[in-house]
Amino acid sequence: MKPLLAITMGDPAGIGPEVAVKVLGMREVYEICRPLVIGNAYFISKALEMTGLRLKLHKTGEPGEAFFRFGTIDILEIESNHPEEILPGLVSAKAGDLAFRSVLKAIELALEGSVDGTVTCPVNKKALQAAGCLFSGHTEIYAHFTGTEKYAMLLAEDQLRVVHVSTHVSLRKACDLVRKERILQVIELLHEALLKLGMEKPRIGVAGLNPHAGEEGLFGDEENGEIIPAINEASSKGICVTGPFPPDSLFVRAKGGEFDGCVAMYHDQGHIPVKLSGFEWDVNKGAMKSLRGVNVTLGLPIVRTSVDHGTAFEIAGKGIASPDSLFNAVAFAVQLSKKIKS
Amino acid sequence: MKPLLAITMGDPAGIGPEVAVKVLGMREVYEICRPLVIGNAYFISKALEMTGLRLKLHKTGEPGEAFFRFGTIDILEIESNHPEEILPGLVSAKAGDLAFRSVLKAIELALEGSVDGTVTCPVNKKALQAAGCLFSGHTEIYAHFTGTEKYAMLLAEDQLRVVHVSTHVSLRKACDLVRKERILQVIELLHEALLKLGMEKPRIGVAGLNPHAGEEGLFGDEENGEIIPAINEASSKGICVTGPFPPDSLFVRAKGGEFDGCVAMYHDQGHIPVKLSGFEWDVNKGAMKSLRGVNVTLGLPIVRTSVDHGTAFEIAGKGIASPDSLFNAVAFAVQLSKKIKS
Repeated sequence: MKPLLAITMGDPAGIGPEVAVKVLGMREVYEICRPLVIGNAYFISKALEMTGLRLKLHKTGEPGEAFFRFGTIDILEIESNHPEEILPGLVSAKAGDLAFRSVLKAIELALEGSVDGTVTCPVNKKALQAAGCLFSGHTEIYAHFTGTEKYAMLLAEDQLRVVHVSTHVSLRKACDLVRKERILQVIELLHEALLKLGMEKPRIGVAGLNPHAGEEGLFGDEENGEIIPAINEASSKGICVTGPFPPDSLFVRAKGGEFDGCVAMYHDQGHIPVKLSGFEWDVNKGAMKSLRGVNVTLGLPIVRTSVDHGTAFEIAGKGIASPDSLFNAVAFAVQLSKKIKS
Repeated sequence: MKPLLAITMGDPAGIGPEVAVKVLGMREVYEICRPLVIGNAYFISKALEMTGLRLKLHKTGEPGEAFFRFGTIDILEIESNHPEEILPGLVSAKAGDLAFRSVLKAIELALEGSVDGTVTCPVNKKALQAAGCLFSGHTEIYAHFTGTEKYAMLLAEDQLRVVHVSTHVSLRKACDLVRKERILQVIELLHEALLKLGMEKPRIGVAGLNPHAGEEGLFGDEENGEIIPAINEASSKGICVTGPFPPDSLFVRAKGGEFDGCVAMYHDQGHIPVKLSGFEWDVNKGAMKSLRGVNVTLGLPIVRTSVDHGTAFEIAGKGIASPDSLFNAVAFAVQLSKKIKS
């Protein structure tokens, strides 16, 4: 049985509905999973009009009623009064509220086992805040509503799979968060995830915090004081993990196939290589023309993958958004869901 | 007249002599410049033997005596007693001393105008230290012996040209060094360099320090307090500069052609994207199979470009080192030297 995936529409004023219909217009998606959109049909209809995709829409009250047939988008309707008041590219409480309720529904369905995994389209933090939702993003919403304390963000693009010791904090704060216990935790979360992805003895490479991984203590002592002890403890638990490596060579080596996964010490250390590898900028359109890459929350009791980009309000409603990342997120969720079920 | 470039051999126990003879075995190098190796002929002969390149060697006492003909390597000899005692892949004071004296000679020749520019092969910091040279690398040696106070490291690879606010310091220290005056200085140094490279109105993009460039002060205040004021002041001086951009999108956009140059706030913020873009890892050989990229010191009164990699002791003497980066460094020095002469 192919995994049933709940795909949330994201902020309806962003590119979420557009990339969702583009992905559901691909036959291969129905070959690997049973996709169900969680959102509001008004925006999916608008996205179909804009993209010119000839797909039908089927509203369903619960996952069991869906058809899961290529050519028809199944949508579990999240109500919205006057959805036409939500305009592309504009922040609004109404849009944030709709996006938030879509995510909550997806989490509920996954927790009760009605869906095998969840895939999220981007939300807008300001819209969420306007709607009174004070979480800084999906990851925090998922952690809260699944009661998860130990979690980490994995970004994946082709050969690069990078988990982060910290994410949305200042760089100074990120330095403070480079602590042995946390590093060990993310190594273990990454190791588990790589096993779920089907690797038998995953090879993990850990970055240093400082340039040249500190050059033997010359530029910073976090490598000796925190990172090496974490690597040693993880090794002693049987995990195949090495490092710390100079950050400017680790990701090159991982991309070349030396590691199945990497540990980044802070947000940009991991995001710069993954996005440089997966994204491509179209300078004439002022937009990304390729957006490969997946964002996965590790440590949750349910599967959650996501696109690797934001709501892109500046190009919302233009029909030029790339569905690559959402396609990758769906494919990744399929892999994770299968393993969990087996 | 083609520019005359002094190419230092680097640490003779590393891959410097090997990549030097490989580059001097390319006819196109002689079409763009007059190359002169500064080093010791013993190691150049060994490298010719190892690589099987059929090139002659011509020792010269001063640049004017060189032939500059493809097929013959001109070398300005730096004496060494018993050079055969220096073994590939091993740190030694003898090797460090020879490398250091080669660099000093190149600087001297450039300062007196006997050469138009200098290109350096990698040195080994431990070997330099063993030889009593306590500079942390080429950049510091050049700054000291040319009496330069304001300088910065530019890394370049294809579309990416990235200058660094700081380099070999801990990440915590790098946060402290994100100051308006210094950022303005590196913007100006980059702007000048891009003009020398022939760009009429170079477009510069500046990275934030924090994730998402601080998300409007939510994750760190260096963007508001230091970076934005520096950008504003540079703009008011007529430089085309924008930012701060989220670090994980700036380099993608630069690679796509939106910017001619970028400003990175710390070593790895700039080194990760440039090396991911220019380097390729051969997992079977355990070595880089491609090493494109150039390291340029901006702010000096003379031209200095360099390879973008280290001595690679682990593969020294094996004949598998890639000459790409040295070739790029030569080509870059040609561009900079030409503009300076005109």
